Amino acid sequence: MKTLKIIKIGGNIIDDDNALQQFLKAFATIDAPKILVHGGGKLATKMAEQMQVEVKMIDGRRVTDLETLDIITMVYAGKINKNIVAQLQANHCNAIGFSGADGNTIVSNKRPVNAIDYGFVGDVKQVNTETLEILLNNNITPVFCAISHDKNGQLLNTNADTIASELAIGFATKWNTELYYCFEKNGVLEHVDDDNSVIENINTATYKTLVDNKVIFEGMLPKLNNCFHAINHNVQKVCIGKAQMLFQKDNKHTTITK
Amino acid sequence: MKTLKIIKIGGNIIDDDNALQQFLKAFATIDAPKILVHGGGKLATKMAEQMQVEVKMIDGRRVTDLETLDIITMVYAGKINKNIVAQLQANHCNAIGFSGADGNTIVSNKRPVNAIDYGFVGDVKQVNTETLEILLNNNITPVFCAISHDKNGQLLNTNADTIASELAIGFATKWNTELYYCFEKNGVLEHVDDDNSVIENINTATYKTLVDNKVIFEGMLPKLNNCFHAINHNVQKVCIGKAQMLFQKDNKHTTITK
Repeated sequence: MKTLKIIKIGGNIIDDDNALQQFLKAFATIDAPKILVHGGGKLATKMAEQMQVEVKMIDGRRVTDLETLDIITMVYAGKINKNIVAQLQANHCNAIGFSGADGNTIVSNKRPVNAIDYGFVGDVKQVNTETLEILLNNNITPVFCAISHDKNGQLLNTNADTIASELAIGFATKWNTELYYCFEKNGVLEHVDDDNSVIENINTATYKTLVDNKVIFEGMLPKLNNCFHAINHNVQKVCIGKAQMLFQKDNKHTTITK
Repeated sequence: MKTLKIIKIGGNIIDDDNALQQFLKAFATIDAPKILVHGGGKLATKMAEQMQVEVKMIDGRRVTDLETLDIITMVYAGKINKNIVAQLQANHCNAIGFSGADGNTIVSNKRPVNAIDYGFVGDVKQVNTETLEILLNNNITPVFCAISHDKNGQLLNTNADTIASELAIGFATKWNTELYYCFEKNGVLEHVDDDNSVIENINTATYKTLVDNKVIFEGMLPKLNNCFHAINHNVQKVCIGKAQMLFQKDNKHTTITK
């Protein structure tokens, strides 16, 4: 089986032109099939402010009304995605930008309205890898923004970590798939303020203990749930850490195992 | 040789949700390799106003400073392109959105600064069809916005009519290529206010006469220059008219010949 690396980057890289440039230069040197998934960073919020569109939050979560969806589509699929693609081309990596609508790659259901109406938010239902496989087999690198569609013409805002894990799961039966979550810390930390306290391996049993002991909490919970979702659905390798983990062999990071 | 239809749509379709929906429904039924090229319509100007970014014009032409390029990238490659792709998917047409950076398909030179500095505007230098051919051969439809890149990481604003003609020329040695410019009139008109006065055929000789007699003027001149550029570079068929010319056999339009 061929190996595929799916690499997700977040705000600490996206929001810093210099960090993004350095990362893309290194990413381009990865001499294997690869898919890049990027979040949106702070730019969508900044854009909403500039356009005087109110950011609606319920319980700390952004509500995606139609105006917000437009901004997200413009910022994620437009500005961020196309600039990443152009920079990868400059680094001799033949990239193509994707939303989940492109190639019908990621189909979602609009999240049902229960207690909270999150608006145009999509929960992934189906990943279609055929088109992506054709591209990967031709040495082309897909670059995904965090937008899916419902196959009825509606774009949907979708969590970038989820896009990455669902893509990985979609490939995992046919490719030896590795999933890397790059973020601002060296991995899952024993002590949240000590970047050297990396927990190098977490499995299902130790995860439960870490959650029970509140070592893992808040934003790390959905990230780790995505990790375990992937590792429990045939994804071969799941890692969390700084982007350097991809390029430096001795770089400490967290590996998730069953 | 296989036949490829390259179809460019402009503001009269882009700016009208209903017209766009109807067009895409019909476009999806074209049972042959096809590429859609779209302009930006009035949305970029509207967005610039909302963001309080000043639109700079010199001699009636928009100057693309960095802020304007960002808006164009967000509106053309983001909002318009992704919504078109999602609607085509809903109509069972497997589309993928492209800028010229994606797949390194359209490489441009930043326009040299002479009397006027147009800013981040690209003049097309090279079209690479390999990736597009792979997709077309797999029944996938590329959808192009009017943005190219310089292969050094810079996106460039590029005229949509030019994107369409240069794509057509890029394919013309390998594919039987047809180029269709859809706009708000039935074709090139003998009398600008009479939509029934379509000139059904224009060749190089009659074009010269029409320009000399000022029947063709202003915005039609660059459009027709693109047409003749294409027909003089192996493109098999070049037509101008309403989008209906694609779907109704008896629909009057203008055909350009050598």
